[in-house]
Amino acid sequence: MTAIRLYGSSDSGNCLKTKWVAERLGIRFEWIETSSFSGATRTPEFLAINPAGQVPVAILADGRMLAQSNAIMLYFAENSDLVPKDAYERAKMLEWLFWEQYSHEPYIAVRIARKYFLNQREEDLDPVLLTKGAAALARLELQLQGAPFLVNGALTLADIALVAYTRAAPRGGFDLESYPAVKAWVGRVERELGLEPLPPVGQ
Amino acid sequence: MTAIRLYGSSDSGNCLKTKWVAERLGIRFEWIETSSFSGATRTPEFLAINPAGQVPVAILADGRMLAQSNAIMLYFAENSDLVPKDAYERAKMLEWLFWEQYSHEPYIAVRIARKYFLNQREEDLDPVLLTKGAAALARLELQLQGAPFLVNGALTLADIALVAYTRAAPRGGFDLESYPAVKAWVGRVERELGLEPLPPVGQ
Repeated sequence: MTAIRLYGSSDSGNCLKTKWVAERLGIRFEWIETSSFSGATRTPEFLAINPAGQVPVAILADGRMLAQSNAIMLYFAENSDLVPKDAYERAKMLEWLFWEQYSHEPYIAVRIARKYFLNQREEDLDPVLLTKGAAALARLELQLQGAPFLVNGALTLADIALVAYTRAAPRGGFDLESYPAVKAWVGRVERELGLEPLPPVGQ
Repeated sequence: MTAIRLYGSSDSGNCLKTKWVAERLGIRFEWIETSSFSGATRTPEFLAINPAGQVPVAILADGRMLAQSNAIMLYFAENSDLVPKDAYERAKMLEWLFWEQYSHEPYIAVRIARKYFLNQREEDLDPVLLTKGAAALARLELQLQGAPFLVNGALTLADIALVAYTRAAPRGGFDLESYPAVKAWVGRVERELGLEPLPPVGQ
């Protein structure tokens, strides 16, 4: 049987989170490196696959397409222990997934992209990226004080989605030393997923 | 039994969509008008309910809190005909829900808020709101040409989520006459939900 094809960029937390879930659940897939920085997501060939021009994209074994990192993760993980069985806990997990895409990724991931990957100067970055990114980290810190994971004490998709850019936040100029519960949780989720910690960011 | 309490603003598509789903499914709720424009979502009392300082928020009958409009809708609609039973169709519905919060709401809803509710001048608005909002409408138009609803020919949460701000897009300066399939779909979803069309925007 043809494996699932995952189009994604290894520089992108949104893409990596779908890969981590597939790996953890033993889902066979082929990774097709596709960087949004290189323009590869804006070619006519890629737009024919995903008219939104975004990675990650999954092409299922039967050829059908699925986009949006969190929707792909949910499709892979349905009926696994990464999705709570209880309706309320499941909804709380979804609450974090939507919060991640609206209140975390647009600031932290965008600042990482501009500062670390595109080498933009600090003074050219929209100041809102720093304030809203810090607010997102403070929100996580509040949640993780006294809780090992985001929902009900066990690893779920919420942790995987949120760790993807949180672990890389220092590349965006956010100091995780200011968020000790977040920092400890990043290590915990990395160990669960078998990920090496990211190397420290040079000054 | 205590009904669900829904904190929300009647000016907000994000809030209204949770109300429409509850109404359609016959879920008992009490609506507590809470406007983010008035600062009511930044009071200590409200932040104790939702530390993210956002509406809508649902307080369930047992007192537990749920935030994020799409997570609330999903909690209400689980096992209803607004969520497809098929795993792939369900994932496509989720794809649209995440796309809405990332690629539609931040442009169309934000432009509506700034232009219509806050009366900001056209020249003070970030031009990206218009270009990215138009791109989102073009993406919907592509999907709805020849399809009555976004996923598999039937009304789902994807339509309810996306119609909330799309129907109000003219208030943000987007002309729906340029998107005939979108315009027809707005009417179709409004009829399904028993909503009166919004009055035309004055010039």
